Parts: sequence; C-alpha cells; structure tokens
Amino acid sequence: MLNQALAYATAHADQHLQELLDYVSIPSVSAQPAHARDTRYAALWLSEHLRDLGLKADVMETGGNPVVYAEWLGKPGAPTVLIYGHYDVQPAEPLELWHSEPFKPVIRDGFIYGRGSDDNKGQHFAHIKAIESFLKGAGSLPVNVKFLIEGEEEIGGPHLPIFVEKNADLLACDVVMISDSAMINPTLPAIVYGLRGLVYFEVEARTASGDLHSGTYGGNVQNPAMALAQILAQLKDDHGRITVPGFLDDVRVLSAEERAEMARVPYRDAEILEETGASQVFGDPDFIVAERMGARPTLEVNGIWGGYTGPGQKTVLPALAHAKISCRLVPNQNPDKIYAQVKARMEQLAPPGVTLTFSLAPGSAAGTIVDRTAPEFMAAVRAARATWGAEPIFMLEGGSIPVVNDFQSALKKPVVLLGYGLPGDNIHAPNERFALDCFRKGIEASARFLVELAK
Amino acid sequence: MLNQALAYATAHADQHLQELLDYVSIPSVSAQPAHARDTRYAALWLSEHLRDLGLKADVMETGGNPVVYAEWLGKPGAPTVLIYGHYDVQPAEPLELWHSEPFKPVIRDGFIYGRGSDDNKGQHFAHIKAIESFLKGAGSLPVNVKFLIEGEEEIGGPHLPIFVEKNADLLACDVVMISDSAMINPTLPAIVYGLRGLVYFEVEARTASGDLHSGTYGGNVQNPAMALAQILAQLKDDHGRITVPGFLDDVRVLSAEERAEMARVPYRDAEILEETGASQVFGDPDFIVAERMGARPTLEVNGIWGGYTGPGQKTVLPALAHAKISCRLVPNQNPDKIYAQVKARMEQLAPPGVTLTFSLAPGSAAGTIVDRTAPEFMAAVRAARATWGAEPIFMLEGGSIPVVNDFQSALKKPVVLLGYGLPGDNIHAPNERFALDCFRKGIEASARFLVELAK
Repeated sequence: MLNQALAYATAHADQHLQELLDYVSIPSVSAQPAHARDTRYAALWLSEHLRDLGLKADVMETGGNPVVYAEWLGKPGAPTVLIYGHYDVQPAEPLELWHSEPFKPVIRDGFIYGRGSDDNKGQHFAHIKAIESFLKGAGSLPVNVKFLIEGEEEIGGPHLPIFVEKNADLLACDVVMISDSAMINPTLPAIVYGLRGLVYFEVEARTASGDLHSGTYGGNVQNPAMALAQILAQLKDDHGRITVPGFLDDVRVLSAEERAEMARVPYRDAEILEETGASQVFGDPDFIVAERMGARPTLEVNGIWGGYTGPGQKTVLPALAHAKISCRLVPNQNPDKIYAQVKARMEQLAPPGVTLTFSLAPGSAAGTIVDRTAPEFMAAVRAARATWGAEPIFMLEGGSIPVVNDFQSALKKPVVLLGYGLPGDNIHAPNERFALDCFRKGIEASARFLVELAK
Repeated sequence: MLNQALAYATAHADQHLQELLDYVSIPSVSAQPAHARDTRYAALWLSEHLRDLGLKADVMETGGNPVVYAEWLGKPGAPTVLIYGHYDVQPAEPLELWHSEPFKPVIRDGFIYGRGSDDNKGQHFAHIKAIESFLKGAGSLPVNVKFLIEGEEEIGGPHLPIFVEKNADLLACDVVMISDSAMINPTLPAIVYGLRGLVYFEVEARTASGDLHSGTYGGNVQNPAMALAQILAQLKDDHGRITVPGFLDDVRVLSAEERAEMARVPYRDAEILEETGASQVFGDPDFIVAERMGARPTLEVNGIWGGYTGPGQKTVLPALAHAKISCRLVPNQNPDKIYAQVKARMEQLAPPGVTLTFSLAPGSAAGTIVDRTAPEFMAAVRAARATWGAEPIFMLEGGSIPVVNDFQSALKKPVVLLGYGLPGDNIHAPNERFALDCFRKGIEASARFLVELAK
C-alpha cells in the first residue's frame, strides 16, 4: 500500500508541484483587510481541492476567518490522525526586497519562492498530497484522517481555541500531526517534543502624584525608575539564574538521556552569535544553549519606560516607571503560580515609598511536552528515520504554539510536531521559500507516518 | 538718607505699583516667537525707565534677546553692587486656568496677579524702586549701582554667559545681588547661600544587533533592560546613599553651626509629602530633608526606556536600553570628575555581553556656595533682619542657577540671593502673583541693603 502511494506521488510530482504553486499564489494575508476576500478564497479553494480528492470537506465559520475541516473515515477501528495547518500567510511587505513577486511563485535553484510556501502552505500541502497518493494510488488509506486547516494563525486569532473546544467531538482523534516547524538541515529531520508556555504582565511603580523637579526633590523622594531597577535586578543572579523563590521548584528535570540528545542538537553558541550579533551568549551556566532554549524557563524584561525619554535633557524626577515582563514556562510549571510568585517577590523587594500595580496580560499558557514513548510519537520517529535515513533530532522549542495547548486540553491526545521547512526558508521575511526536496520528502514522510500509525 | 528714601517710597507707593503693573502687562515671553517684539519692547521700556530715574542705561545686544545694562557710579570709593534680574517671563499657557488675564495684571486680595509679577519683574523692580527712592528722595545713593537685567532666563539662553565673560570689566563690582527666589513665608525671609551643580548624561546598553524574539533567544542572550537595571541598582544602597566609589569624597562637610541652622528651616517631611503626594520621604538617613535638598549630592534616573513600550504584549528581547541620569552636585565636587567616576563604575558593573555608550549633555556646572562671613553677605542679613524683624533663614537650594556660576567665575565676588517672592506665588504656573507687601518690603530691604553695604 505504501509502495503504491509513493509510486503515485513520484508519478504525479509535477502536478502536485503545480497545485502547490496555485495554492501559494492566493494572497491569503490574514492581517490585511485588503486581502480579506483572498483569505476566504484560499479556504474555499482548499476545501474544494480536498473534496476533489475524495474527502468530505467543509468550510466552517468561526466568527473570524473560517476553518477548513475535512475527513476520510473509511477505516473503522483503525487509528485517526488529525492534521493541522494554516492557510493564512504573513504580509509580504517589504515588497522591494523580494527577488520575485511574493504571490507569483517561481521555482529557482530547487526552491519554490513565494509567501506562504513554507509557512504553512507547503508543509500541510505535503500531507494532503500524501493522502491523495494513498486514495488515488492504492484506493484507500491505512488510517482515518481529519484535516483542520485554519486561517488566523498569523494574527493570533481568538477564534480557533473556541472552535476546538466546541468541536472536540468532531475533532476526536488518536494523534494530532502538525508540520509547522523546521528540520535541522536538508538531511536531518527534527521533531519538537516540547514547547514553552508564557506568562506576560506589566508592572507600574508609582512614588508621587506627578512628575517632580529633580533639583527640588531629588534625594528626598523615591525615584520609581531606580526603584524598579532595584526590584528587577534582584529577580536574577549575576549568571542569569532566576532567583524568585519557588520559581524553579516545578521545573521538569531533564533525564540523562534527554541531555545526551540535547547535546546532539547542532545549535550552539556559534549559531546564537551569528543570528543575534551578540558578543557572547549569556545564560544559566549549568545548561547548554539548546537546553536553555527549550528546557529552562525564562524571565525577561520585554519593555521598560519611565520619566523623560525624548531628546536633550529634562531634570525630571519621574512619578511613574513601568516594565513589561514575560516568563517562558516549561512543563509542570503552573502559569498562575509563577505569576503569583514573581508578583509576591517584586512586592517584597519594593523599596519604601513605592507602590507597585500589576496587570496580567490575557493568554497565559502552560508549557507542553509530548510523551516520546507514545506509540503515535514512535510512528513519526520511524517515518522520519525511513524517509531521511537519519535519526531525527528531538527538540524542545523555545517559543509557544498556543494551538498545541488547545488540542491537548480539548482532545487529550499526543501532538506530533514534525517540521518540513528549513532554517533558511525566510519565513515572516522577504523571499520566503520551500525546498522542492522538502516538499517531496514531506509527502513521503507523511505517507510513511500513516502506515506506521496503522501498525 | 535711608529715612528719606523710605519716606519717598511710602509717599510714591501707588505710583510705583502702577509702574509695576505697566511692566507686567508687557507679554515678554522669551520662549514664544509670537512675542519676540514684546520681549524686546520690555528691554526698551525698562532701559528708558532707568534713564528717567537718572541712571545711565543701555540696551546691549547679545546675539539673542538683549540685556539692559544701567549704572549710577556717583560714589567713587564706595562699594559697587551689581543687581541682576530678568525681564523675560514664562509662557502663560494654559490660559483657561487663569482667573484674570495674564498680561492684564489686576490687584486682588493683596496680590498683583499677572505673568511675571513674581518671576522676575516684581522682584527686580523692587530694587529699581529702592534706587529711585534714594535718587529722588535723598538726591544720591549710598553706594554705586549697576543693573544687569537679561531676557533669556526662561529659555536657558546661551548668550548671557558669553556676555558676562566678555563684559567682566563693565560688570566689575563688589557684590552681586539677585532677588529671584522665595521667602519662607510672608514674615520670614530666606537667603540662599548655596546652589547645587549638575552633570547630565545618557547611557545606552546594547546586547545584540537588533531586537530578538524572546521565545527563541530568551535565556541565551543578555537582556539590556535587565542589565541596565542591574547596573543602576548598584549605584545606590537600600537607603538611597550613592555608592559610586569616590563620589562623596569631595562633598563639603557641614559645620555644626550650619546643621543647627538647617534644622531651623521649616521645610520638613510634612511639606515634602504635601507637595509631592509621596507616601513617605526617602533619602540618606544621616541627613534631614533640608540638608538632603541643598547640601547633599544626588544621582537620579531622569528617564529610562527600552524594548516594547506600547499597549498589549510583544514578546521581544530588546537589543537596546537607555537611561538619562543626572547628578546634582554640591560645592567642591568637580563635574568632570563625578561624570568620570559614575561612568567608570557603570562600565565596571556592566554584565558580560553588554556594551555601554555614554554621552554627556552640555552645560555641566559645579555647585556654588557663598561665603556667609563676607561683609557683603552680612549687609544683606542685617537688611533682611531690619525689614522683617526676623532672623533670616539661610538655605541651600536644591536646584541650579547657572548665572551664579557665570558671575562667580567672571567677577570673582560674592553673590547674595535674597528672595522677595512667596512659595505660593505660582511661578511657571497659572495665576502667578506677587504680594503687595512683598513688593513694599522688597523696596525697603533693597534700600537697607545699600545702606548696610556702605557701612
């Protein structure tokens, strides 16, 4: 059955590529009102395409951009995989930096250049083409398949979590497959098995009813900017370790096996320096870069402001200073508890004469981790190994993908994150691209995954 | 001679008041181009007025607004006093908060209400009316008198220091008298005998070539906002004492007599809390409020900014953070040395991966102090005592009056700061006023000062 599907995929490679080019040519930019109709058109186009392949497909309203839901449930008793992706894309601007038009995709040097080619049209289209290859090449699928392709990923849309929660029965499955990340390089696949959560809040330090003259009152009234500096300074030690009491208590301890795997990740000091322009890396010396990125929580000042910030000098003693602070959380850390701990510590550190006011931003999320011993996870590992002939790298991702939490809490099933993109694909930047080889191998990996899942 | 002068002043009180109202009605707002001609008109009006009184007067160009220079040198061998003031005024805005028109001065409840009535027209006009009272009432003056009334005080104009330096011979004198400050209350005069200096600079902390994603790089790269907070936090201890090595070394030690006088200043915690809305005062516990205001240096953050400061959340790891910092200096502290010390300490405190860049603002000034045992100073003390029947309070002022430094360095003579205003006179605010009683007593004090100076 696999061989029939792979043979079909090979035989129809040109056609599949042309279809992907058609799909990428739709300027489904969710952030730009001028492209609202284009965005909706992408949903209709995709739904029609899935129907043509033999799936039952529907464009379902969410209150914002619709989702495309499709299913093929012809294997009663076999596992069901839910494949997630998003048909919306980032804005293409700045247009002048593109070497070819973002929505007139072209093939150059083995890559498809076009906005959304990697993120995320190319990646989920590989899954669609794998499904087609089974249905057209072998007449059936090894497992049941559902698709959920949304249209608000690039705008952090509020509708998907509600949709997932309300439609948990419709979306019921044994595993969620997401291809919306990157391989290490063209020959080394990566599976993300953990994502960090997030708590984001703002603090205001007030010391007086209004700004004061620094000549008259300096030295006699608290300075909120200095007070805030003193509070912030005591949240971490000189090595960057977070010192808020209790903050690290629940952090999942890495196993020796995990640390050995982390050490394999070819993302080290040199890569950080190259990408950031920093003169040196800086972080908890007890951990390496890859561990600090995915397996350790953070506490970062995202913004700070107070007093006079314009040109020239103003001898003001400010009455207010502010900071935006966020913590990336790893699994087992509870966002509410972490927020309470940091808040309590900052209040404890507040010098006399300083009143702190906190406001928590919406969208706190816990970190997530996938059980790497789950059979569904192992199926992805075997599929990747067989496709690329290399042992996949297991990665903990530094950022957050909120939909993973939504799926986990609504569906309570493993989520597998197997990326088909490459680090140099310029997602969210001009000249986004997707390697033809990644598309081809992605179709193969997806096909193999379905077969492995059936075992 | 004094009695004749005081009798003249009393007899001509109504006329003097009417002249002051005429003077205040000139909208000589130096900051507003629409009032450029009015500002120059004030100089011409004043010069003509002084000539009418029998002084040799001239409007002298400076490159900006002119100064009015006048002299009466009819007492060869007697001391010469240089009286300083400024004919320009603050903008009147916001106009809607005035109870009467700012440039149509009116008398209400014993006060002249009008922009510039206290700051500074009323105060230096009292000196002019004292001179008039001697010349018209007694036919002569007890000492030689020079006037320097400038027109750029409210815009920190750059021309006066150059004018003073270039015209040191013209301005040569035995003492400079400045009435541009406030009494403690209507029955308690105050003489400022020290002013703080100022060093103002900006620091930039850089950690990367551009802003980074906090999910990807948080925990692996220095955060410049946190680094800056850590640096700033270590410049003072928990009690607000400056801990920069060497910073306090040159600070003039207060004598027991001075401290006893400071303790008499009726400006204490309650006044600070009332004026600022702070919940408590905060400062070096080894000193009282009045000492901290005038006799101790400060190090204050005037502004701080970095990263994302708009509404909502942005998970940015900033590449840059900035602070504006100023130090008020007391006598004996060298501005250049202080700047070098603070800079060196901040560089020493900079965590790994942080590059600091400093820029010093123009206009550094040393603190100044007047020799209170000088005969000219004692003349002012006796004049104030005789006028108000109360022992004047000696004060160290928290702010800076750059012209005092200019006079000291160019003329090398004592500067006496005897204020005729009141704390509630709303200078730089709507409804500025000047008490009729302050005007009357100001004339008397000025007259007595000249007589005392001649002794």
